[in-house]
Amino acid sequence: MTRKKPDIDRVFHALGDPTRRAMVEKLSHGPISVSRLAEPLDITLAAVVQHLQVLEECGVVQTEKLGRVRTCSLAPGGLAVVERWISARRSIWERRLDRLGDLLAGEVED
Amino acid sequence: MTRKKPDIDRVFHALGDPTRRAMVEKLSHGPISVSRLAEPLDITLAAVVQHLQVLEECGVVQTEKLGRVRTCSLAPGGLAVVERWISARRSIWERRLDRLGDLLAGEVED
Repeated sequence: MTRKKPDIDRVFHALGDPTRRAMVEKLSHGPISVSRLAEPLDITLAAVVQHLQVLEECGVVQTEKLGRVRTCSLAPGGLAVVERWISARRSIWERRLDRLGDLLAGEVED
Repeated sequence: MTRKKPDIDRVFHALGDPTRRAMVEKLSHGPISVSRLAEPLDITLAAVVQHLQVLEECGVVQTEKLGRVRTCSLAPGGLAVVERWISARRSIWERRLDRLGDLLAGEVED
């Protein structure tokens, strides 16, 4: 089982591609083989493998070879690095809006 | 005031760069001028303007020129497109884990 440490630059880069997002969407329903992952995608198997490598390198996806079949799955916490970054920005932003709201309420009361 | 529609491919791409993420982090504390945004960044003003354009094009940042000063701010909902995508993946994934948990609990009871 290959498992890389999530790297925020590379995770954002990897998810900027619609094919790779489609692969992550598919994998969020559960682990599947590379060939089943490739089925609905209108690209060559070689291209699927390349996209898979990008997702594996940045820690979003993990793959495991059992006999002749390579199975892919979402790596636990692989998307967390991006999720945490986004929610930290939102919470700072929302606290700022709350303070602005308090200020405006104060002005109305004055 | 320039305001672009958020585009998920381009938002992910834009946030894959550490300088652009640092700019978004700074702007989450409130609107500031381009020169103040550039201050802590160890790059030329021209490079800052280029990064700003990328963030503006994908709808994460908006800028407004008042007199001779251009002020930048986070565009409302600019990060939401990415946040929604991530949380949709997580909720599908968590439902799957819940079902697995139920299945395992059922097996223990049997």
